[in-house]
Amino acid sequence: MESANVIDRLAPVFKQVDQQIRDQIGSDVPFVSQVSEYILLSGGKRLRPTLFVLAARLCGYNGGREYYFSSMFEYLHAATLLHDDVVDQADTRRGQKAAHLVYGNQGVILVGDFLFAKSMALAAETEQLKIGEFLADTVARMAEGEILQLLHAWDVEITEAEYERVIHRKTGALIEAACHLGAILAGAPQDWADRLGSYGRMIGHAFQIIDDALDYSTTAAEFGKPVGHDLDEGKITLPIIRTLREAHAADRAELLELVTKKRRSDEEFERVKALIDQYDGLSQSRDRAIQLVDEAKANLEALPDRPEKADLADLADFIIVRRN
Amino acid sequence: MESANVIDRLAPVFKQVDQQIRDQIGSDVPFVSQVSEYILLSGGKRLRPTLFVLAARLCGYNGGREYYFSSMFEYLHAATLLHDDVVDQADTRRGQKAAHLVYGNQGVILVGDFLFAKSMALAAETEQLKIGEFLADTVARMAEGEILQLLHAWDVEITEAEYERVIHRKTGALIEAACHLGAILAGAPQDWADRLGSYGRMIGHAFQIIDDALDYSTTAAEFGKPVGHDLDEGKITLPIIRTLREAHAADRAELLELVTKKRRSDEEFERVKALIDQYDGLSQSRDRAIQLVDEAKANLEALPDRPEKADLADLADFIIVRRN
Repeated sequence: MESANVIDRLAPVFKQVDQQIRDQIGSDVPFVSQVSEYILLSGGKRLRPTLFVLAARLCGYNGGREYYFSSMFEYLHAATLLHDDVVDQADTRRGQKAAHLVYGNQGVILVGDFLFAKSMALAAETEQLKIGEFLADTVARMAEGEILQLLHAWDVEITEAEYERVIHRKTGALIEAACHLGAILAGAPQDWADRLGSYGRMIGHAFQIIDDALDYSTTAAEFGKPVGHDLDEGKITLPIIRTLREAHAADRAELLELVTKKRRSDEEFERVKALIDQYDGLSQSRDRAIQLVDEAKANLEALPDRPEKADLADLADFIIVRRN
Repeated sequence: MESANVIDRLAPVFKQVDQQIRDQIGSDVPFVSQVSEYILLSGGKRLRPTLFVLAARLCGYNGGREYYFSSMFEYLHAATLLHDDVVDQADTRRGQKAAHLVYGNQGVILVGDFLFAKSMALAAETEQLKIGEFLADTVARMAEGEILQLLHAWDVEITEAEYERVIHRKTGALIEAACHLGAILAGAPQDWADRLGSYGRMIGHAFQIIDDALDYSTTAAEFGKPVGHDLDEGKITLPIIRTLREAHAADRAELLELVTKKRRSDEEFERVKALIDQYDGLSQSRDRAIQLVDEAKANLEALPDRPEKADLADLADFIIVRRN
């Protein structure tokens, strides 16, 4: 099996996950349903619920409710996207206008809270105490990650360890939760749950590193959001961190000046990209992501030889080749 | 026993609740602890955790962890206060600068998310599935209540039933949860939990009605926040609703004009108060609150005759006499 085909192969899973999310949206306050649909039906990848379903099945779950419960991860993800849109004051998300521009900051914050609550309610419905507990801890870690990111805005001194601490919490924690809790739903041994959790955390890391690299290497149409946006928000990510570390004094000084500007012209942004290119900033990011994906896959080895094991391995590889 | 003395009588409970909240605050991200302390240590009434403690004891709880778990209600309350401060863009809260003015909208939204998570984590720690489930539903209802309030902003056609629907969700739901879940923690019969929940919902209603009336009948220094602020935010509350319903045509037209202005001079606000006074808008609000408190207390009758029963009855009465 090949990673490029995993998306086709898993199409029925993605579709069923998606259908479940559509079926469950709803509030008796129409505005809440409207904003929820706007963010939930805007073509997300459904990565998190899909991982939950696969992890549960890999661990032998046959209770028949894995799709139903999988929505908890998409609700939580959507809640954080809504709050992040307000926090970042981004203009677009997944190729459409950011929700706060359509529905206002106030409504978007509150519908985010509503979706958090729906996610936690689904966790409680599993009737497994560990699931609610782990999910609540995950939300706390994600909020801390976003806050750390804010605190490091425009911080050109940020170390690679600090950068990884941020993305571990803001992206890794929820993907870890999806994989770990799939195992817990299945009643798997703690060791399997921990391995699946590590797998999830590492592909989450890799996913975010690739995402951060795409901001410098793709076009807005392909990416679904404007490129170069991270710099506009003062997010100093791995391509910049590596380039600043490797660059000769003059190049380093030039890059520092370019990235600390609040706004850059198109020419200046091209120059940033050229400097990253010159010091292999993107391929270094990619190498780090590949390393994480390899470590992630190593965690799968001790798990049962069911078809979902290959799916998870191929999904990990797919993270490296994706373009959006 | 008298309601005026209940606050003195319960001082040791308030104190222990407060100490517990102080002991449990914390994150390894110092900014998170800072914002949490700013909102949690700004002199709130600790009404919700106190009600939880009293409800648990009234139902015979003796597991020794009622104070520890009671913080979940104050964390949740603080989370909603943080988000509401951003939603309302209020300038002050509990007599101090609103958190968003000190720490920025972004940080405040995210620390709100963090406190939600801490509250849900405490719910999970009780190891009672019903508690996490009920608390998650409560958060969803609270968010819906705030959204309904936003949707009714500047809506002078709002009916009394719609107004009560808003305050039931935004204020009643959490107080209901505190009382109901105290009983659940104690393993009380469902009937007791339901009665305590109804008691809580009704005193929550009454509390909000009195709060809304105080906005027209007290001074800023006494109230801890600027008076007349509800109107500035387009919140049409019971004193206005009742006065609009009772007033003669000319007075009604004048009041409508005054309340639909985005800003009012001090003289205009005094005229609003005079019109409310003329049609007994405040005493009508008070009467409604007294009626709710009586219904709340009736729910206590079937419960065991422990000292906490008198405490809860007196706390209900205190809601009517409070000045801030």
